Amino acid sequence: MAGAMVPEMTTAREFTIHQYAVVRRTASLGRGVIVYPFSQVGEAVLLGERVVIGSNCYIGDASMIGAGTRIQHGCFLPKRSRIGERVFIGPNVTFTDDRRPYVGNRDYHAQPPVVEDEASIGAGAVILPGITIGKHAMVGAGAVVVRDVPAGATYYGNPAKENGGKR
Amino acid sequence: MAGAMVPEMTTAREFTIHQYAVVRRTASLGRGVIVYPFSQVGEAVLLGERVVIGSNCYIGDASMIGAGTRIQHGCFLPKRSRIGERVFIGPNVTFTDDRRPYVGNRDYHAQPPVVEDEASIGAGAVILPGITIGKHAMVGAGAVVVRDVPAGATYYGNPAKENGGKR
Amino acid sequence: MAGAMVPEMTTAREFTIHQYAVVRRTASLGRGVIVYPFSQVGEAVLLGERVVIGSNCYIGDASMIGAGTRIQHGCFLPKRSRIGERVFIGPNVTFTDDRRPYVGNRDYHAQPPVVEDEASIGAGAVILPGITIGKHAMVGAGAVVVRDVPAGATYYGNPAKENGGKR
Repeated sequence: MAGAMVPEMTTAREFTIHQYAVVRRTASLGRGVIVYPFSQVGEAVLLGERVVIGSNCYIGDASMIGAGTRIQHGCFLPKRSRIGERVFIGPNVTFTDDRRPYVGNRDYHAQPPVVEDEASIGAGAVILPGITIGKHAMVGAGAVVVRDVPAGATYYGNPAKENGGKR
Repeated sequence: MAGAMVPEMTTAREFTIHQYAVVRRTASLGRGVIVYPFSQVGEAVLLGERVVIGSNCYIGDASMIGAGTRIQHGCFLPKRSRIGERVFIGPNVTFTDDRRPYVGNRDYHAQPPVVEDEASIGAGAVILPGITIGKHAMVGAGAVVVRDVPAGATYYGNPAKENGGKR
Repeated sequence: MAGAMVPEMTTAREFTIHQYAVVRRTASLGRGVIVYPFSQVGEAVLLGERVVIGSNCYIGDASMIGAGTRIQHGCFLPKRSRIGERVFIGPNVTFTDDRRPYVGNRDYHAQPPVVEDEASIGAGAVILPGITIGKHAMVGAGAVVVRDVPAGATYYGNPAKENGGKR
Protein backbone atom coordinates (compact mmCIF):
# COMPACT_ATOMS: atom_id res chain seq x y z
CA MET A 1 0.00 0.00 0.00
CA ALA A 2 2.72 2.43 0.99
CA GLY A 3 4.06 3.11 -2.49
CA ALA A 4 0.71 4.04 -3.90
CA MET A 5 0.01 6.27 -0.94
CA VAL A 6 2.29 8.98 -2.27
CA PRO A 7 0.49 10.22 -5.34
CA GLU A 8 2.34 11.91 -8.14
CA MET A 9 2.15 15.61 -7.79
CA THR A 10 -0.08 17.08 -10.41
CA THR A 11 -0.97 20.42 -11.83
CA ALA A 12 -4.14 22.13 -10.81
CA ARG A 13 -5.86 21.13 -14.01
CA GLU A 14 -5.49 17.44 -13.35
CA PHE A 15 -7.94 17.23 -10.46
CA THR A 16 -11.29 18.77 -9.62
CA ILE A 17 -12.22 20.56 -6.43
CA HIS A 18 -15.70 21.97 -6.15
CA GLN A 19 -16.00 25.67 -5.43
CA TYR A 20 -17.66 24.92 -2.07
CA ALA A 21 -15.05 22.43 -0.85
CA VAL A 22 -12.20 23.29 1.49
CA VAL A 23 -8.89 21.62 0.64
CA ARG A 24 -5.80 22.67 2.59
CA ARG A 25 -2.83 23.83 0.57
CA THR A 26 -0.59 21.20 2.10
CA ALA A 27 -2.77 18.36 0.79
CA SER A 28 -1.44 16.41 -2.20
CA LEU A 29 -3.97 15.33 -4.80
CA GLY A 30 -3.33 12.72 -7.48
CA ARG A 31 -4.43 12.89 -11.07
CA GLY A 32 -8.18 12.55 -11.57
CA VAL A 33 -9.13 13.27 -7.95
CA ILE A 34 -12.59 14.77 -7.41
CA VAL A 35 -13.69 16.54 -4.23
CA TYR A 36 -17.41 17.22 -4.11
CA PRO A 37 -19.10 20.21 -2.44
CA PHE A 38 -19.19 20.88 1.29
CA SER A 39 -16.29 18.58 2.05
CA GLN A 40 -13.02 19.32 3.82
CA VAL A 41 -9.62 17.79 3.16
CA GLY A 42 -7.17 18.49 5.97
CA GLU A 43 -3.51 19.44 6.18
CA ALA A 44 -0.97 17.13 4.58
CA VAL A 45 -3.60 14.65 3.37
CA LEU A 46 -2.50 12.45 0.47
CA LEU A 47 -5.16 11.44 -2.04
CA GLY A 48 -4.04 8.90 -4.65
CA GLU A 49 -5.06 8.99 -8.29
CA ARG A 50 -8.76 8.98 -9.07
CA VAL A 51 -9.82 9.16 -5.42
CA VAL A 52 -13.35 10.52 -5.10
CA ILE A 53 -14.39 12.39 -1.96
CA GLY A 54 -18.17 12.71 -1.90
CA SER A 55 -20.10 15.66 -0.55
CA ASN A 56 -20.10 16.75 3.10
CA CYS A 57 -17.11 14.65 4.15
CA TYR A 58 -14.28 15.42 6.56
CA ILE A 59 -10.85 13.94 5.88
CA GLY A 60 -8.61 14.48 8.90
CA ASP A 61 -5.09 15.87 8.71
CA ALA A 62 -2.27 13.62 7.51
CA SER A 63 -4.63 10.89 6.28
CA MET A 64 -3.51 8.78 3.32
CA ILE A 65 -6.03 7.43 0.82
CA GLY A 66 -4.95 5.04 -1.92
CA ALA A 67 -5.62 5.23 -5.64
CA GLY A 68 -9.11 4.54 -6.87
CA THR A 69 -10.81 4.72 -3.47
CA ARG A 70 -14.30 6.20 -3.31
CA ILE A 71 -15.69 7.85 -0.19
CA GLN A 72 -19.36 8.75 -0.26
CA HIS A 73 -21.41 11.56 1.25
CA GLY A 74 -21.11 12.53 4.89
CA CYS A 75 -18.16 10.39 6.01
CA PHE A 76 -15.78 11.31 8.83
CA LEU A 77 -12.15 10.16 8.91
CA PRO A 78 -9.97 11.18 11.86
CA LYS A 79 -6.40 12.36 11.62
CA ARG A 80 -3.86 9.92 10.21
CA SER A 81 -6.41 7.49 8.78
CA ARG A 82 -4.79 4.92 6.48
CA ILE A 83 -7.08 3.85 3.66
CA GLY A 84 -5.85 1.51 0.91
CA GLU A 85 -6.54 1.38 -2.81
CA ARG A 86 -9.90 0.76 -4.45
CA VAL A 87 -11.69 0.88 -1.11
CA PHE A 88 -15.39 1.67 -1.10
CA ILE A 89 -16.72 3.68 1.83
CA GLY A 90 -20.49 4.17 1.75
CA PRO A 91 -22.40 7.28 2.80
CA ASN A 92 -22.43 8.51 6.41
CA VAL A 93 -19.70 6.13 7.58
CA THR A 94 -17.94 7.27 10.75
CA PHE A 95 -14.42 6.32 11.79
CA THR A 96 -13.04 7.16 15.23
CA ASP A 97 -9.65 7.32 16.92
CA ASP A 98 -10.23 7.89 20.65
CA ARG A 99 -11.28 5.22 23.16
CA ARG A 100 -11.86 7.73 25.96
CA PRO A 101 -13.32 10.74 24.21
CA TYR A 102 -13.68 13.13 27.11
CA VAL A 103 -12.98 16.82 26.77
CA GLY A 104 -9.57 17.52 28.24
CA ASN A 105 -8.61 13.82 28.44
CA ARG A 106 -4.89 13.80 29.26
CA ASP A 107 -4.45 10.14 28.38
CA TYR A 108 -5.50 10.71 24.81
CA HIS A 109 -3.44 8.91 22.25
CA ALA A 110 -4.99 8.56 18.85
CA GLN A 111 -5.72 5.15 17.35
CA PRO A 112 -6.63 5.93 13.75
CA PRO A 113 -8.19 3.33 11.46
CA VAL A 114 -6.49 1.16 8.86
CA VAL A 115 -8.51 -0.09 5.91
CA GLU A 116 -6.74 -2.40 3.48
CA ASP A 117 -7.08 -2.53 -0.29
CA GLU A 118 -10.41 -3.34 -1.91
CA ALA A 119 -12.37 -3.47 1.32
CA SER A 120 -15.97 -2.26 1.30
CA ILE A 121 -17.69 -0.48 4.18
CA GLY A 122 -21.45 -0.20 4.08
CA ALA A 123 -23.53 2.91 4.60
CA GLY A 124 -23.84 4.30 8.09
CA ALA A 125 -21.28 1.95 9.63
CA VAL A 126 -19.40 3.10 12.73
CA ILE A 127 -15.83 1.90 13.23
CA LEU A 128 -14.32 1.99 16.74
CA PRO A 129 -10.79 3.27 17.37
CA GLY A 130 -7.74 1.31 16.35
CA ILE A 131 -9.60 -1.11 14.07
CA THR A 132 -8.02 -2.72 11.01
CA ILE A 133 -10.34 -3.82 8.22
CA GLY A 134 -8.64 -6.42 6.06
CA LYS A 135 -8.18 -6.70 2.34
CA HIS A 136 -11.38 -7.25 0.38
CA ALA A 137 -13.40 -7.50 3.62
CA MET A 138 -16.98 -6.28 3.67
CA VAL A 139 -18.60 -4.39 6.54
CA GLY A 140 -22.38 -4.36 6.26
CA ALA A 141 -24.52 -1.25 6.26
CA GLY A 142 -25.28 -0.02 9.76
CA ALA A 143 -22.62 -2.20 11.40
CA VAL A 144 -20.84 -1.09 14.56
CA VAL A 145 -17.36 -2.56 14.24
CA VAL A 146 -15.70 -3.23 17.62
CA ARG A 147 -12.87 -5.58 16.62
CA ASP A 148 -10.61 -6.12 13.62
CA VAL A 149 -12.19 -7.57 10.50
CA PRO A 150 -10.02 -10.24 8.82
CA ALA A 151 -9.21 -10.12 5.13
CA GLY A 152 -12.11 -11.32 3.01
CA ALA A 153 -14.57 -11.58 5.91
CA THR A 154 -18.08 -10.13 6.04
CA TYR A 155 -19.10 -8.46 9.31
CA TYR A 156 -22.38 -6.85 10.26
CA GLY A 157 -24.67 -6.10 13.20
CA ASN A 158 -24.20 -4.16 16.44
CA PRO A 159 -21.70 -5.26 17.60
CA ALA A 160 -20.56 -6.50 14.21
CA LYS A 161 -19.75 -10.22 13.96
CA GLU A 162 -18.70 -12.46 11.11
CA ASN A 163 -21.76 -13.03 8.94
CA GLY A 164 -23.74 -11.20 11.62
CA GLY A 165 -23.06 -13.98 14.15
CA LYS A 166 -24.46 -16.75 11.85
CA ARG A 167 -27.95 -15.26 11.74
CA MET B 1 -48.01 8.37 -6.10
CA ALA B 2 -46.94 8.74 -9.71
CA GLY B 3 -49.18 11.67 -10.59
CA ALA B 4 -47.99 13.84 -7.78
CA MET B 5 -44.40 13.01 -8.60
CA VAL B 6 -44.36 15.44 -11.53
CA PRO B 7 -44.63 18.82 -9.88
CA GLU B 8 -45.94 21.82 -11.72
CA MET B 9 -43.14 23.84 -13.10
CA THR B 10 -42.77 27.06 -11.26
CA THR B 11 -40.99 30.33 -11.59
CA ALA B 12 -37.88 31.01 -9.65
CA ARG B 13 -39.73 33.13 -7.12
CA GLU B 14 -41.97 30.29 -6.03
CA PHE B 15 -39.32 28.24 -4.27
CA THR B 16 -36.34 28.97 -2.05
CA ILE B 17 -32.82 27.70 -2.54
CA HIS B 18 -30.20 28.79 -0.05
CA GLN B 19 -27.14 30.53 -1.43
CA TYR B 20 -24.93 27.67 -0.27
CA ALA B 21 -26.99 24.87 -1.79
CA VAL B 22 -26.24 23.22 -5.13
CA VAL B 23 -29.30 22.44 -7.25
CA ARG B 24 -28.74 21.18 -10.80
CA ARG B 25 -30.45 23.11 -13.57
CA THR B 26 -32.29 20.02 -14.77
CA ALA B 27 -34.03 19.55 -11.40
CA SER B 28 -37.71 20.53 -11.23
CA LEU B 29 -38.91 22.19 -8.06
CA GLY B 30 -42.53 22.57 -7.07
CA ARG B 31 -44.12 25.61 -5.51
CA GLY B 32 -43.03 26.26 -1.94
CA VAL B 33 -39.97 24.00 -2.04
CA ILE B 34 -37.15 24.94 0.34
CA VAL B 35 -33.57 23.69 0.00
CA TYR B 36 -31.43 24.48 3.04
CA PRO B 37 -27.70 25.23 3.03
CA PHE B 38 -24.96 22.77 2.14
CA SER B 39 -27.31 20.38 0.33
CA GLN B 40 -27.15 19.06 -3.20
CA VAL B 41 -30.05 18.22 -5.49
CA GLY B 42 -28.94 16.16 -8.49
CA GLU B 43 -29.76 16.13 -12.18
CA ALA B 44 -33.38 15.63 -13.20
CA VAL B 45 -34.64 15.37 -9.63
CA LEU B 46 -38.32 16.14 -9.17
CA LEU B 47 -39.35 17.80 -5.91
CA GLY B 48 -43.12 18.12 -5.40
CA GLU B 49 -44.80 21.13 -3.87
CA ARG B 50 -43.69 22.19 -0.40
CA VAL B 51 -40.92 19.59 -0.21
CA VAL B 52 -38.29 20.62 2.33
CA ILE B 53 -34.69 19.45 1.93
CA GLY B 54 -32.80 20.07 5.17
CA SER B 55 -29.18 21.08 5.44
CA ASN B 56 -26.25 18.91 4.33
CA CYS B 57 -28.33 16.43 2.29
CA TYR B 58 -27.58 14.69 -0.99
CA ILE B 59 -30.47 13.88 -3.31
CA GLY B 60 -29.26 11.60 -6.09
CA ASP B 61 -29.96 12.15 -9.77
CA ALA B 62 -33.40 11.35 -11.13
CA SER B 63 -34.96 10.92 -7.70
CA MET B 64 -38.64 11.79 -7.27
CA ILE B 65 -39.96 13.21 -4.02
CA GLY B 66 -43.69 13.72 -3.50
CA ALA B 67 -45.50 16.83 -2.30
CA GLY B 68 -45.21 17.78 1.33
CA THR B 69 -42.32 15.46 2.14
CA ARG B 70 -39.70 16.68 4.64
CA ILE B 71 -36.14 15.44 4.62
CA GLN B 72 -33.98 16.50 7.54
CA HIS B 73 -30.29 17.31 7.96
CA GLY B 74 -27.58 15.04 6.61
CA CYS B 75 -29.63 12.49 4.64
CA PHE B 76 -28.34 10.58 1.63
CA LEU B 77 -30.63 9.37 -1.16
CA PRO B 78 -29.11 7.41 -4.07
CA LYS B 79 -30.01 7.88 -7.70
CA ARG B 80 -33.58 7.16 -8.71
CA SER B 81 -34.98 7.09 -5.18
CA ARG B 82 -38.78 7.11 -5.14
CA ILE B 83 -40.21 8.92 -2.13
CA GLY B 84 -43.96 9.45 -1.76
CA GLU B 85 -46.00 12.35 -0.43
CA ARG B 86 -45.95 13.67 3.14
CA VAL B 87 -43.09 11.36 4.07
CA PHE B 88 -40.97 12.31 7.07
CA ILE B 89 -37.27 11.43 6.88
CA GLY B 90 -35.36 12.24 10.06
CA PRO B 91 -31.82 13.59 10.31
CA ASN B 92 -28.81 11.55 9.16
CA VAL B 93 -30.89 8.84 7.47
CA THR B 94 -28.97 6.86 4.85
CA PHE B 95 -30.50 5.03 1.91
CA THR B 96 -28.48 2.68 -0.30
CA ASP B 97 -28.79 1.05 -3.70
CA ASP B 98 -25.93 -1.42 -4.11
CA ARG B 99 -25.76 -4.90 -2.52
CA ARG B 100 -22.15 -5.47 -3.55
CA PRO B 101 -20.53 -2.07 -3.17
CA TYR B 102 -17.02 -2.81 -4.37
CA VAL B 103 -15.05 -0.34 -6.44
CA GLY B 104 -15.17 -1.47 -10.05
CA ASN B 105 -17.96 -4.02 -9.44
CA ARG B 106 -19.09 -5.12 -12.90
CA ASP B 107 -22.25 -6.77 -11.65
CA TYR B 108 -23.58 -3.52 -10.27
CA HIS B 109 -27.21 -2.89 -10.87
CA ALA B 110 -28.82 -0.26 -8.73
CA GLN B 111 -31.70 -1.10 -6.39
CA PRO B 112 -32.96 2.30 -5.25
CA PRO B 113 -35.40 2.66 -2.36
CA VAL B 114 -39.15 3.14 -2.50
CA VAL B 115 -40.91 4.92 0.35
CA GLU B 116 -44.67 5.16 0.16
CA ASP B 117 -46.88 8.06 1.20
CA GLU B 118 -46.96 9.22 4.81
CA ALA B 119 -44.25 6.88 6.01
CA SER B 120 -41.91 8.08 8.75
CA ILE B 121 -38.24 7.16 9.01
CA GLY B 122 -36.48 7.87 12.28
CA ALA B 123 -33.18 9.63 12.78
CA GLY B 124 -30.02 7.82 11.84
CA ALA B 125 -31.78 4.86 10.23
CA VAL B 126 -29.96 2.92 7.50
CA ILE B 127 -32.01 1.34 4.71
CA LEU B 128 -30.49 -1.51 2.69
CA PRO B 129 -30.78 -1.64 -1.11
CA GLY B 130 -34.02 -2.43 -2.84
CA ILE B 131 -36.21 -1.93 0.23
CA THR B 132 -39.81 -0.72 0.04
CA ILE B 133 -41.23 1.05 3.08
CA GLY B 134 -45.00 0.90 3.03
CA LYS B 135 -47.62 3.57 3.40
CA HIS B 136 -47.79 5.16 6.85
CA ALA B 137 -45.15 2.73 8.17
CA MET B 138 -42.74 3.89 10.85
CA VAL B 139 -39.06 3.03 11.00
CA GLY B 140 -37.56 3.71 14.41
CA ALA B 141 -34.55 5.90 15.06
CA GLY B 142 -31.29 4.03 14.58
CA ALA B 143 -32.91 1.09 12.80
CA VAL B 144 -31.04 -0.91 10.16
CA VAL B 145 -33.73 -2.00 7.71
CA VAL B 146 -32.89 -5.24 5.90
CA ARG B 147 -36.28 -6.24 4.53
CA ASP B 148 -39.41 -4.55 3.27
CA VAL B 149 -41.58 -2.81 5.86
CA PRO B 150 -45.31 -3.42 5.32
CA ALA B 151 -47.80 -0.58 5.22
CA GLY B 152 -48.64 0.69 8.69
CA ALA B 153 -46.01 -1.42 10.47
CA THR B 154 -43.43 -0.18 13.00
CA TYR B 155 -39.91 -1.57 12.61
CA TYR B 156 -36.84 -0.91 14.70
CA GLY B 157 -33.58 -2.48 15.90
CA ASN B 158 -30.53 -3.85 14.08
CA PRO B 159 -31.64 -5.74 12.09
CA ALA B 160 -35.01 -4.01 12.20
CA LYS B 161 -38.01 -6.20 13.05
CA GLU B 162 -41.68 -5.52 13.58
CA ASN B 163 -42.05 -3.78 16.93
CA GLY B 164 -38.36 -4.49 17.46
CA GLY B 165 -38.98 -8.27 17.52
CA LYS B 166 -41.59 -7.96 20.33
CA ARG B 167 -39.15 -6.52 22.80
CA MET C 1 -25.11 24.42 34.31
CA ALA C 2 -27.46 27.37 33.92
CA GLY C 3 -25.02 30.11 34.80
CA ALA C 4 -22.50 29.12 32.25
CA MET C 5 -25.19 28.81 29.62
CA VAL C 6 -25.33 32.56 29.12
CA PRO C 7 -21.95 33.37 27.67
CA GLU C 8 -20.48 36.80 27.98
CA MET C 9 -21.16 38.79 24.90
CA THR C 10 -18.05 39.25 22.92
CA THR C 11 -16.79 41.31 20.06
CA ALA C 12 -16.54 39.80 16.64
CA ARG C 13 -12.81 39.30 16.97
CA GLU C 14 -13.15 37.01 19.94
CA PHE C 15 -14.63 34.06 18.12
CA THR C 16 -14.11 32.41 14.76
CA ILE C 17 -16.78 31.59 12.22
CA HIS C 18 -15.69 30.01 8.99
CA GLN C 19 -16.66 31.78 5.79
CA TYR C 20 -18.85 28.85 4.78
CA ALA C 21 -20.76 28.56 8.04
CA VAL C 22 -24.20 30.04 8.67
CA VAL C 23 -24.67 31.60 12.10
CA ARG C 24 -27.87 33.50 12.79
CA ARG C 25 -27.50 37.05 14.03
CA THR C 26 -29.51 36.31 17.15
CA ALA C 27 -27.05 33.62 18.28
CA SER C 28 -24.72 34.54 21.16
CA LEU C 29 -21.17 33.25 20.96
CA GLY C 30 -18.72 33.16 23.86
CA ARG C 31 -15.06 34.02 23.72
CA GLY C 32 -12.97 31.49 21.83
CA VAL C 33 -15.88 29.80 20.03
CA ILE C 34 -15.04 28.18 16.69
CA VAL C 35 -17.63 27.24 14.07
CA TYR C 36 -16.21 25.10 11.27
CA PRO C 37 -17.33 25.12 7.63
CA PHE C 38 -20.70 23.95 6.37
CA SER C 39 -22.38 24.18 9.76
CA GLN C 40 -25.45 26.10 10.84
CA VAL C 41 -26.14 27.71 14.19
CA GLY C 42 -29.79 28.63 14.59
CA GLU C 43 -31.67 31.60 16.01
CA ALA C 44 -31.06 32.52 19.65
CA VAL C 45 -28.55 29.75 20.21
CA LEU C 46 -26.16 30.32 23.12
CA LEU C 47 -22.64 28.93 22.75
CA GLY C 48 -20.48 29.18 25.88
CA GLU C 49 -16.80 30.06 25.87
CA ARG C 50 -14.51 27.88 23.80
CA VAL C 51 -17.34 25.78 22.35
CA VAL C 52 -16.27 24.11 19.12
CA ILE C 53 -18.85 23.27 16.46
CA GLY C 54 -17.30 20.91 13.92
CA SER C 55 -18.04 20.87 10.22
CA ASN C 56 -21.42 20.04 8.70
CA CYS C 57 -23.41 20.34 11.95
CA TYR C 58 -26.87 21.73 12.60
CA ILE C 59 -27.56 23.40 15.94
CA GLY C 60 -31.29 24.01 16.30
CA ASP C 61 -32.82 27.30 17.38
CA ALA C 62 -32.68 28.29 21.04
CA SER C 63 -30.23 25.54 21.97
CA MET C 64 -27.82 26.21 24.84
CA ILE C 65 -24.33 24.70 24.82
CA GLY C 66 -22.05 25.07 27.84
CA ALA C 67 -18.46 26.26 27.98
CA GLY C 68 -15.76 24.00 26.65
CA THR C 69 -18.09 21.58 24.85
CA ARG C 70 -16.91 20.07 21.57
CA ILE C 71 -19.30 18.88 18.89
CA GLN C 72 -17.77 17.01 15.99
CA HIS C 73 -18.57 16.73 12.29
CA GLY C 74 -22.08 16.05 11.06
CA CYS C 75 -24.10 16.26 14.28
CA PHE C 76 -27.74 17.26 14.48
CA LEU C 77 -29.25 18.96 17.54
CA PRO C 78 -32.95 19.83 17.51
CA LYS C 79 -34.41 23.06 18.79
CA ARG C 80 -33.96 23.84 22.46
CA SER C 81 -31.29 21.21 23.09
CA ARG C 82 -29.61 21.67 26.48
CA ILE C 83 -25.97 20.62 26.46
CA GLY C 84 -23.75 21.13 29.51
CA GLU C 85 -20.13 22.14 29.90
CA ARG C 86 -17.13 20.16 28.67
CA VAL C 87 -19.36 17.65 26.88
CA PHE C 88 -17.84 15.64 24.04
CA ILE C 89 -20.15 14.80 21.13
CA GLY C 90 -18.52 12.59 18.50
CA PRO C 91 -19.01 12.79 14.75
CA ASN C 92 -22.36 12.06 13.10
CA VAL C 93 -24.31 11.95 16.38
CA THR C 94 -28.04 12.53 15.98
CA PHE C 95 -30.37 13.88 18.63
CA THR C 96 -34.14 13.91 18.18
CA ASP C 97 -37.15 15.58 19.76
CA ASP C 98 -40.28 14.03 18.28
CA ARG C 99 -41.73 10.63 19.26
CA ARG C 100 -44.29 10.62 16.46
CA PRO C 101 -42.48 12.25 13.56
CA TYR C 102 -45.20 12.28 10.95
CA VAL C 103 -45.65 15.17 8.57
CA GLY C 104 -48.51 17.29 9.80
CA ASN C 105 -48.65 15.61 13.22
CA ARG C 106 -50.98 17.76 15.32
CA ASP C 107 -49.97 16.16 18.59
CA TYR C 108 -46.39 17.25 18.17
CA HIS C 109 -44.77 18.55 21.29
CA ALA C 110 -41.03 18.69 21.25
CA GLN C 111 -38.94 16.71 23.74
CA PRO C 112 -35.44 18.07 23.26
CA PRO C 113 -32.39 16.35 24.76
CA VAL C 114 -30.55 17.22 27.95
CA VAL C 115 -26.88 16.31 28.25
CA GLU C 116 -25.20 17.07 31.57
CA ASP C 117 -21.65 18.33 32.15
CA GLU C 118 -18.68 16.25 31.08
CA ALA C 119 -20.70 13.51 29.40
CA SER C 120 -19.27 11.86 26.31
CA ILE C 121 -21.32 10.62 23.36
CA GLY C 122 -19.64 8.30 20.89
CA ALA C 123 -19.59 8.60 17.12
CA GLY C 124 -22.75 7.82 15.22
CA ALA C 125 -24.94 7.46 18.30
CA VAL C 126 -28.67 8.17 17.98
CA ILE C 127 -30.51 9.62 20.96
CA LEU C 128 -34.29 9.25 21.16
CA PRO C 129 -36.55 12.15 22.16
CA GLY C 130 -36.71 13.41 25.71
CA ILE C 131 -33.57 11.60 26.88
CA THR C 132 -31.32 12.94 29.65
CA ILE C 133 -27.70 11.83 29.63
CA GLY C 134 -26.18 12.24 33.07
CA LYS C 135 -23.03 13.92 34.25
CA HIS C 136 -19.82 12.25 33.11
CA ALA C 137 -21.81 9.40 31.50
CA MET C 138 -20.46 7.72 28.38
CA VAL C 139 -22.55 6.64 25.41
CA GLY C 140 -20.69 4.22 23.15
CA ALA C 141 -20.14 4.70 19.45
CA GLY C 142 -23.10 3.51 17.40
CA ALA C 143 -25.44 3.29 20.40
CA VAL C 144 -29.17 3.87 20.03
CA VAL C 145 -30.20 5.43 23.32
CA VAL C 146 -33.84 4.76 24.23
CA ARG C 147 -33.87 5.61 27.93
CA ASP C 148 -32.12 8.02 30.27
CA VAL C 149 -28.47 7.34 31.01
CA PRO C 150 -27.58 7.84 34.70
CA ALA C 151 -24.65 9.97 35.78
CA GLY C 152 -21.35 8.15 35.37
CA ALA C 153 -22.85 5.16 33.55
CA THR C 154 -21.62 3.63 30.28
CA TYR C 155 -24.31 2.65 27.77
CA TYR C 156 -23.94 1.06 24.36
CA GLY C 157 -25.67 -1.24 21.87
CA ASN C 158 -29.01 -1.05 20.06
CA PRO C 159 -30.99 -0.52 22.19
CA ALA C 160 -28.30 0.86 24.47
CA LYS C 161 -27.97 -0.80 27.90
CA GLU C 162 -25.61 -0.31 30.80
CA ASN C 163 -22.27 -1.83 29.79
CA GLY C 164 -24.01 -3.11 26.68
CA GLY C 165 -26.27 -5.41 28.77
CA LYS C 166 -23.27 -7.12 30.43
CA ARG C 167 -21.93 -8.51 27.17
